Amino acid sequence: MILLYEAWLNQTAIRQEFSDETFAFKQMDLKPGDAVTLRLREEITEWLHRPVLADDHQATIVFALAPDNFATTEAFQIVQAAGQTTITAQGPAGLIYGFYALIRQRLTGTKQVTLASAPDQALRMIDHWDQIDGSIERGYAGASIFFGAPDHLSNPDKGDFAVLPVKGDPFRHDRNRMVRYARLLASVGINAISLNNVNVRDQGTNLITEPYLDGVKEIADIFRGFGIQIYLAINWESPIHIGHLATSDPLDTKVEAFWQQICDGIYQVIPDFGGFVVKADSEGEPGPYQYGRTHAEGANMLAQAIAPHHGLIIWRAFVYNSHQDWRDRSTDRAKAAYENFEGLDGQFADNVILQIKFGPIDFQTAEPLQPLFGKLQHTNQMMEFELAAEYLGHQIDVNYAVPQWSHMINFETQHANFADSRAGEVIKAGSIKPQNSGFAAVGNVGMTPFWTGNPLALANLYGYGRLCWGNRLQPDDILNEWLQLTFGVAKAQTRRKIFDILSSSNQTYRNYTAPLGVGFMVVPHYHYGVSVNGYEYDKWGTYHFADRNGVGVDRTQKTGTGFTAMYAPQVAAMFEELATTPVELALFFHHIRYDQVLPNHKTLIQTIYDTHFDGFDMTTKYMDDWATLQADLPADLFQEVQNCLERQNENALEWRDQVNTYFYRMSGIADEQGRQIYR
Amino acid sequence: MILLYEAWLNQTAIRQEFSDETFAFKQMDLKPGDAVTLRLREEITEWLHRPVLADDHQATIVFALAPDNFATTEAFQIVQAAGQTTITAQGPAGLIYGFYALIRQRLTGTKQVTLASAPDQALRMIDHWDQIDGSIERGYAGASIFFGAPDHLSNPDKGDFAVLPVKGDPFRHDRNRMVRYARLLASVGINAISLNNVNVRDQGTNLITEPYLDGVKEIADIFRGFGIQIYLAINWESPIHIGHLATSDPLDTKVEAFWQQICDGIYQVIPDFGGFVVKADSEGEPGPYQYGRTHAEGANMLAQAIAPHHGLIIWRAFVYNSHQDWRDRSTDRAKAAYENFEGLDGQFADNVILQIKFGPIDFQTAEPLQPLFGKLQHTNQMMEFELAAEYLGHQIDVNYAVPQWSHMINFETQHANFADSRAGEVIKAGSIKPQNSGFAAVGNVGMTPFWTGNPLALANLYGYGRLCWGNRLQPDDILNEWLQLTFGVAKAQTRRKIFDILSSSNQTYRNYTAPLGVGFMVVPHYHYGVSVNGYEYDKWGTYHFADRNGVGVDRTQKTGTGFTAMYAPQVAAMFEELATTPVELALFFHHIRYDQVLPNHKTLIQTIYDTHFDGFDMTTKYMDDWATLQADLPADLFQEVQNCLERQNENALEWRDQVNTYFYRMSGIADEQGRQIYR
Repeated sequence: MILLYEAWLNQTAIRQEFSDETFAFKQMDLKPGDAVTLRLREEITEWLHRPVLADDHQATIVFALAPDNFATTEAFQIVQAAGQTTITAQGPAGLIYGFYALIRQRLTGTKQVTLASAPDQALRMIDHWDQIDGSIERGYAGASIFFGAPDHLSNPDKGDFAVLPVKGDPFRHDRNRMVRYARLLASVGINAISLNNVNVRDQGTNLITEPYLDGVKEIADIFRGFGIQIYLAINWESPIHIGHLATSDPLDTKVEAFWQQICDGIYQVIPDFGGFVVKADSEGEPGPYQYGRTHAEGANMLAQAIAPHHGLIIWRAFVYNSHQDWRDRSTDRAKAAYENFEGLDGQFADNVILQIKFGPIDFQTAEPLQPLFGKLQHTNQMMEFELAAEYLGHQIDVNYAVPQWSHMINFETQHANFADSRAGEVIKAGSIKPQNSGFAAVGNVGMTPFWTGNPLALANLYGYGRLCWGNRLQPDDILNEWLQLTFGVAKAQTRRKIFDILSSSNQTYRNYTAPLGVGFMVVPHYHYGVSVNGYEYDKWGTYHFADRNGVGVDRTQKTGTGFTAMYAPQVAAMFEELATTPVELALFFHHIRYDQVLPNHKTLIQTIYDTHFDGFDMTTKYMDDWATLQADLPADLFQEVQNCLERQNENALEWRDQVNTYFYRMSGIADEQGRQIYR
Repeated sequence: MILLYEAWLNQTAIRQEFSDETFAFKQMDLKPGDAVTLRLREEITEWLHRPVLADDHQATIVFALAPDNFATTEAFQIVQAAGQTTITAQGPAGLIYGFYALIRQRLTGTKQVTLASAPDQALRMIDHWDQIDGSIERGYAGASIFFGAPDHLSNPDKGDFAVLPVKGDPFRHDRNRMVRYARLLASVGINAISLNNVNVRDQGTNLITEPYLDGVKEIADIFRGFGIQIYLAINWESPIHIGHLATSDPLDTKVEAFWQQICDGIYQVIPDFGGFVVKADSEGEPGPYQYGRTHAEGANMLAQAIAPHHGLIIWRAFVYNSHQDWRDRSTDRAKAAYENFEGLDGQFADNVILQIKFGPIDFQTAEPLQPLFGKLQHTNQMMEFELAAEYLGHQIDVNYAVPQWSHMINFETQHANFADSRAGEVIKAGSIKPQNSGFAAVGNVGMTPFWTGNPLALANLYGYGRLCWGNRLQPDDILNEWLQLTFGVAKAQTRRKIFDILSSSNQTYRNYTAPLGVGFMVVPHYHYGVSVNGYEYDKWGTYHFADRNGVGVDRTQKTGTGFTAMYAPQVAAMFEELATTPVELALFFHHIRYDQVLPNHKTLIQTIYDTHFDGFDMTTKYMDDWATLQADLPADLFQEVQNCLERQNENALEWRDQVNTYFYRMSGIADEQGRQIYR
């Protein structure tokens, strides 16, 4: 039985692969405080169980510093020559990344003799939405690995986020779990994590103060060795809740002094603390708007307080009116981030980063790129993803989302002022300091035995990290890497079948859920399962406007909300016309009659029916295919995935039938192929 | 400021009215254990503050027993002659009812010289759905007055029902509150209450054992004086949870022995304990079906255990398949109670009572009578109502529901084998023992200052009690009584305006919510606020089947589920045809095209629009009318109602617009009057 899943770092296989190797550090003194080098030595001797020799000529694998050969401290080179493998880097971080890269090379059987590698994105971050009681907002993998009593699995699969008051120490102190998690992260190049939910409430607000900082320090001490910096999400109203001030106005000198004092206190305990993540003026959270201040004024005040310590302020751009009226068709939530932040370009301090969700809505199955990317030219930026799978099947339904993320990262924004206009590039080029830019993603792990709800969901954590490092890596290649590492002992045919499931899973999920980019047809609050009208008459601004004639949101300039105009001209023109809009975004940009023929040469209604029948059929195929793998996989892993696939199949059936029936009742148009659609 | 609202028993006014009176008990010894007579004396001396004279010739008001003059112990007569008022009855219960009747007579200025009164229903019960942690399932008036810490208002207005574990004593011990509640109940003739939620879980299961029984005894001791017996809801699986048996099979001798022991234990502590309320095989609760036993077998086993103590088993008929498939149009939840219990007629023991909701679904705004009434001929029966207002506006929206209840009670079932076929009569005539029949209602009070959420919701408690006593009392007359008692010090014009609000409120609420009997267009779980499709694709069997052509559930014999056939022929024929179906039930019985003309000479769609515009307009009128009453009402009561009316107005607006838009989008038919319907 698997007690704690090793994920893609199978110790037995790795030890075997390196069983003849010896290691050495060439002319490297171990300096006090060099936590990464210390950890790297420990990884070799304790985790890999191989010796570190004093004489580097004797060793088969040698680490060496080469201060002048690399653009960043994280880049590395692996050279194999004359029976010796040399890993060189500017600093320890590069060496440890080289170490895991070598493992990956060996375990995946890559034949390259020389590998030179540098990360595409400077900041490669996981944002945990963990809460002080051990629950996780939008968590579907059990309790937090950072907070909560050892045996307490708070809301393991509900994704609810009512926080219970905690008496005494809220930290879990599960050192073993944290070390293994840090190793997983470092092995794919993650270099930053934020510990707590961006909705910071009650006791969570106090994490930035003693005695809670001692618990944060314990975590920071573990992750530091793996090159990972710790961030905390803060409550904008901390000056009121903690400082007992009457205001959190960013221009108030008492508020400034409060934050300086907080920062001083944190850095005294954690000298390499990363900084703050801030959700302000968003979905009911407080923010600078309350005081008539701009978000630049708000963020810059915090930036000034943390600047002496070289910390960062990661400011979320997820700001929109969450009290819209469905009767008013002129408001368009998709425009909100652009409208709130486009005018602030150039006004943020150089240690502020705007963290912007990849799409204009909220991590839906199909969204266009957020139009701020490429428009911002003087603002540090991060693109935000969500591994958690809030809208992608809650880690029950299999959904390898890397293809969607890769598509977003490599989307051509067509902004003329950038040499390379792909989203992943304009993020850097449009930042004041490219080292203060990158990617962030809401995390997906918890205290479940397999780290994630569905064990296959770990491919998203792996893939996200790899994609941060190499923006042009192909999703299928990443998937094959992960499969080779995770299921290296299984038959090639087994990996092939799992590949077939995962590589098609993102499209499959998109097929049986909300059609063609219209989004948000989910059960309110939980966001799992179908509810076609669940958000149709609500305040969150997420509508499909279905009537007896058609469905979709007209976001064109000609006749709609004008959202398309926020893109560069070529992209705007593409989305403006149905003929050139990708079919999977058809209903995101256009309100379309059911009998209208789409660029795929089918009517809209037939496209809805077809995708939904196809999507469900694929989930049945996944179950059948998985069932054939039983003999070749660990029993509990096999079972866990099988359970998930069965639940997915039920879920897909409801989606298929409810969506099809809903639109059949609306349109009165029968399926061309005569398949069963319930009245 | 009103600290604890006196409701319809205004002590100041009552004391003033009786300030010249003296009382006496004619030839009545106070026997040990005669709790009611003791309480009546206390009511006179302590509450009314008037003397009880030894010489009945001196007194202006005299109580006397007349054992042979009455049909029941609860009937009474008030005779006014020669300057003396005499209240006679067979026993103490009749005397105390006479006492409150005299107060009502005097305060409402009734001129009758002689009043002879006997209750129409033997059992007149309130079922509390209170939980051991102080919360109330479907409670909208604060925490339980029986359970919970003194200052702990659990889920005051959510109607949620997650029960938290309680350490130590779960009873509130608020003697003052309980005495006042018991007085309110007795003053309208209630003679039984059940204390706890019919969904009996966790600690609540243990209420039938020590040490919890001590707390139940404290309550019983208080209510006994007011002629009110105490019941408890039980968990069917108590033999397993409490008795540590492996089964709760009713035919298992160990299970029988367990229940005998439980009953013996209860009656040792509370000799006049009423009995058990049982929700079995219902909405996930356990029951005899698990063991292949009938509900008669299940109920009779309990009945046998409690019979030696003269207790009753109140067995809920709310049994239906709560895991239906919306795809299957042949299943009809409305038929469930009939299908489950019709065949058991004559099989239940004579101390079992079947408690049957008034309609076939679940306390909706418009339902036909449950067809079991009149069909059952050898089964003790109670008709169940819900004061709580789960589907009637949560005591936010004003809704005087007595007209609906009166309509159900007086509905002509047309079953030929009864001399009087009205529902309230066939309940008695169809019972094995008429004294074991009556009405029950889910309670609506809690720890809020005004007892109910909206202070005007108290009219429902008053009205329900009065209607139990006098089935033919007119809802408007009851309302006027309540107004005179409650607002006697206000101007007649004020009462008139409140009358206008309340007397129209049930129809108003019906107008702006789910149209024409279709029901259940509410926010799932909470059941407040509009969600047209909230239950449309669910497992609870509550559908409207709206499509682009029409809406409604075809329950006819000719083309539908055949539910109509469950009624007596004349009634069946009436509901079978749209032309003779009451318009307010049109969509309950028929699936109708939007352009079909109804018996009201309007199309269905126009009827939907008109009722929804009218309903909303009425709530605006209520707000305006109430605002004119400020000077004539206690400030906090005025304010509380005003707050409710404002919330109701917002709620009605959402209902109006979402229902109208939903059906406009479906039908494409514009409002004939050109009013604003949003696209």
